Amino acid sequence: MDVLVQLPLSEEQRARLEAAAPGARFEYVKPRTVTREQVEAADAIVGNVPTEMLAGASGLRLLQLNSAGYEQYAAPGVLPDGCALCCATGAYGQAVSEHLFAMVLSLVKRLPAYQDRQRAHDWCDLGPVTTLRGARVLVLGAGDIGTHLAGLFAAMGSSVCGVRSREAAPHHPFDDMGTLSDLPRLLPQADVVCSVLPSTTQTAGIGDQAFFDAMRDGAYFANAGRGDLVDQRALVEALASGHLSGAALDVCTPEPLPAESPLWDAPNLLLTPHVSGQFHLAVTLDNIVGIAAENLAHLAAGEALRNHVNA
Amino acid sequence: MDVLVQLPLSEEQRARLEAAAPGARFEYVKPRTVTREQVEAADAIVGNVPTEMLAGASGLRLLQLNSAGYEQYAAPGVLPDGCALCCATGAYGQAVSEHLFAMVLSLVKRLPAYQDRQRAHDWCDLGPVTTLRGARVLVLGAGDIGTHLAGLFAAMGSSVCGVRSREAAPHHPFDDMGTLSDLPRLLPQADVVCSVLPSTTQTAGIGDQAFFDAMRDGAYFANAGRGDLVDQRALVEALASGHLSGAALDVCTPEPLPAESPLWDAPNLLLTPHVSGQFHLAVTLDNIVGIAAENLAHLAAGEALRNHVNA
Repeated sequence: MDVLVQLPLSEEQRARLEAAAPGARFEYVKPRTVTREQVEAADAIVGNVPTEMLAGASGLRLLQLNSAGYEQYAAPGVLPDGCALCCATGAYGQAVSEHLFAMVLSLVKRLPAYQDRQRAHDWCDLGPVTTLRGARVLVLGAGDIGTHLAGLFAAMGSSVCGVRSREAAPHHPFDDMGTLSDLPRLLPQADVVCSVLPSTTQTAGIGDQAFFDAMRDGAYFANAGRGDLVDQRALVEALASGHLSGAALDVCTPEPLPAESPLWDAPNLLLTPHVSGQFHLAVTLDNIVGIAAENLAHLAAGEALRNHVNA
Repeated sequence: MDVLVQLPLSEEQRARLEAAAPGARFEYVKPRTVTREQVEAADAIVGNVPTEMLAGASGLRLLQLNSAGYEQYAAPGVLPDGCALCCATGAYGQAVSEHLFAMVLSLVKRLPAYQDRQRAHDWCDLGPVTTLRGARVLVLGAGDIGTHLAGLFAAMGSSVCGVRSREAAPHHPFDDMGTLSDLPRLLPQADVVCSVLPSTTQTAGIGDQAFFDAMRDGAYFANAGRGDLVDQRALVEALASGHLSGAALDVCTPEPLPAESPLWDAPNLLLTPHVSGQFHLAVTLDNIVGIAAENLAHLAAGEALRNHVNA
């Protein structure tokens, strides 16, 4: 078996991957240097290689992505017949949830406003703050990332309601669970609303004016899912009017955000440039190696694959 | 019994206090408006009234402070003979610990640096970050605030070692416990060092160059105790050299910090103007009312007082 790996792995991570498929030949390539010949010679690929190179890879039996999203690889004609497509769902929960949680906690304690005072050398008490203890948090998206995020809020003493596209019983650490159609009832009850939803036809644009109007006065909004969830003009208005106390965005539209966007200077908005995921936390790459190793072993043994999205 | 209260209490909080001492007369005053006559007529006082008004209050049997610190009230000649002095230890744990924890988490995720990029309208990925999960945290001060703080770090998956002035077994949620004399051994092991120590002859100046030199490369320092713990010049050097990854200070010397202090612009320093305590979190005042109510009841019943510091 020829395995092509397009990931920046350490020696230790390579060893872990290779141990999962004894006898296989491993080739490691950097992104943007990978060639069509390398792709077409592979029996299995680990990493998000360019979609346009894949159709001719007639021997390819497994494409293990390093991303949780897989839409562009699942489009008709991208993959050769018989090739299993597996995504990296489960790898990003810790990194994305910790980043978004840090942003929300920072807003609740008014740290961005204090930093602005610090830059002005101004010793200025900004008054009362609130707490996440006892806060009611709504998490849109209750998969790996949403569940991790719920755990962080729960650890701070918040009660957490999850929202999924389809009805389901709440799983730990969620206290409650609803669906997207429950939002008109759930939004007015939440002190903090966080989205980690992917971009789908169901989710695009749901963060509109009605959505923000339905939120409590003084509540916080946060998004680390996809930027197209949010009507950015409506969000800026909800912040400028003082209706929302703050917002945290790690994603926006478009990315990179143009320098002239009004989003940059929206009051009490904390914005990071889509950095919560990536490989910025070392454990993420470890998690991807774990999923890939598991699937290489399953492939060799003819067993069912993990995160198999075109089964 | 005449009770003088110098605290900004709600109707509900007043009712709770009054219920603890049935039959007593309560008078409520604002800070800076309290008179010597009011102080001298009181049997019990709740609140930090001016020290110079107290010596003549010959009938005073209880001074219940709203602060955890009490040094200036315990000085000889301040209180009339026979007056019990009680502090508000236990009231500030949640507020101070949440603020300091938010500052540290914010640094670990590089949010202050991202905010600077946001202000410049610059979509700029700052690269790898770390996590508090699995981090080794050293908390100097293992009383109410330190214990609360340890709980927050433990909830994020850190292991927490406490440091007290006297030897003691670790109590939940501390994993380990040392004394100030163990610092040369403990500092090099910690990824995060937080101080919530009060100012005493034992603690002043311990955050000196040797202290920061002993910390790991890339570690974080945070202080919400008292500013005189830290040699600020040594801290600025440890940040400027890159030896420390960041520092969070809610206290400094002097306060307010002069506009020309080099502390304001030290790299990766997050500075707030001694706001973690106060009454900025509503629960703090509730906690103080609880302690005061308990002690008014104890005083009327001739029972032992809570937080009695001149017993």
